Amino acid sequence: MSETTGGEDRMQAIEARLQLLEDEVAIRRLLSSYGPAVDSGNSGAGADLYADNGIFDYSTFVDDRLQEQYLDKRGIFDMLEHGQHQTFIHEGAAHTLGPAIIDISGDTAVATNYSVILRRIGMSITVYRMSANRWDLVRTSKGWRFTKRTTRMLDGSADARELLGRAIAD
Amino acid sequence: MSETTGGEDRMQAIEARLQLLEDEVAIRRLLSSYGPAVDSGNSGAGADLYADNGIFDYSTFVDDRLQEQYLDKRGIFDMLEHGQHQTFIHEGAAHTLGPAIIDISGDTAVATNYSVILRRIGMSITVYRMSANRWDLVRTSKGWRFTKRTTRMLDGSADARELLGRAIAD
Amino acid sequence: MSETTGGEDRMQAIEARLQLLEDEVAIRRLLSSYGPAVDSGNSGAGADLYADNGIFDYSTFVDDRLQEQYLDKRGIFDMLEHGQHQTFIHEGAAHTLGPAIIDISGDTAVATNYSVILRRIGMSITVYRMSANRWDLVRTSKGWRFTKRTTRMLDGSADARELLGRAIAD
Repeated sequence: MSETTGGEDRMQAIEARLQLLEDEVAIRRLLSSYGPAVDSGNSGAGADLYADNGIFDYSTFVDDRLQEQYLDKRGIFDMLEHGQHQTFIHEGAAHTLGPAIIDISGDTAVATNYSVILRRIGMSITVYRMSANRWDLVRTSKGWRFTKRTTRMLDGSADARELLGRAIAD
Repeated sequence: MSETTGGEDRMQAIEARLQLLEDEVAIRRLLSSYGPAVDSGNSGAGADLYADNGIFDYSTFVDDRLQEQYLDKRGIFDMLEHGQHQTFIHEGAAHTLGPAIIDISGDTAVATNYSVILRRIGMSITVYRMSANRWDLVRTSKGWRFTKRTTRMLDGSADARELLGRAIAD
Repeated sequence: MSETTGGEDRMQAIEARLQLLEDEVAIRRLLSSYGPAVDSGNSGAGADLYADNGIFDYSTFVDDRLQEQYLDKRGIFDMLEHGQHQTFIHEGAAHTLGPAIIDISGDTAVATNYSVILRRIGMSITVYRMSANRWDLVRTSKGWRFTKRTTRMLDGSADARELLGRAIAD
């Protein structure tokens, strides 16, 4: 009896579970694209990982003081296209991201992971940066995109610990 | 004809495949939570990644000799809450885990991966530890949890090679 | 009414989506097996990650000049079984691979990721190599296998940037 298949409700439950698994794959794929986009020098592709209103919230040293900075999508493109980023990738650099905690809620999601920048300096390779990252995401007509990347250097500051802690809070 | 859908057997096969995929996602999520739990300083969350009877089996230097140590869940909490772990995360540390080989068998599973601890020391970042890890897991009422983490430093010893070798044996 | 389940077409669409998700898991598992296979010293398992006609295309220093090298499956086994690889793993080494961009097309696939080799030298751990990798894969009767691994060191050369760029091109 085909009646035993449970009908429409059961089919919809299966399709919803598939959709969630596919979303998880798509978000991991977007995160895995970050490094290759920026290390290949494709600044356009790097910026296009973000939604149109996407922003990059990071901290950096300004006159020896750590300060928060915000870049919009245009600013992200400029950072990748100009400045020291191009120097880094022409000397040898890997912007690596580790496996992420991913929480999906319908058309939005949050991912949390570590980023480690490795740089070749002369004949040696150094760990140049290690940071905690929170990626806010949205489902767009072109697929999942970042609405906000928040990066805090793992330099002992409370900011980075709090960012990581948000991912494991109940 | 709805008869062609194959009926109950086919539906159950689909649901079993979904369950296995969802288990794989859940186990990756648990592994990805390890670093953020311990690096955020949330020792309770770090210990709660383990089942109630979970243990941590590792090797460390005691009086300059490498010795095996065992910690139960309370011991894991104490290690994270006290001692050098807190010093490390307040100086800047990343307890990173790489992608894992995951083998699921019903309500138990085994995952094998690398762990790399990065520490900020002054203005530089050092690779402080690299180890091979075997995670035994169980499905509990609260989701997947570790029953045992076995960690061996990749210091050239046979122990670490044997641990890694178990994951790829037939 | 079981008619509402949509019948055979809907079931086949579900099963095709499951298959694609399972292929993604299998390919990640193959990639995650690479490090444990070679770092455990199981050269046979390391070579068997490749299809029978699989090749390893890499660049290395020959008389201080960077040159492209090709190894077939027998050559991969020999490289792992003899030479400096055995020295490395007996001193302590981790051949780590990061999360990959994976594109599956029926019975073939391409994966792109970073590889980082960590080596213990005395009491310290160094980043010995960082490279960009492109893995061409095929579905065989024994599961997914590598038909070609292309590795280029991230030493600032255009080769590595081009390899990464291929993974994010439309």
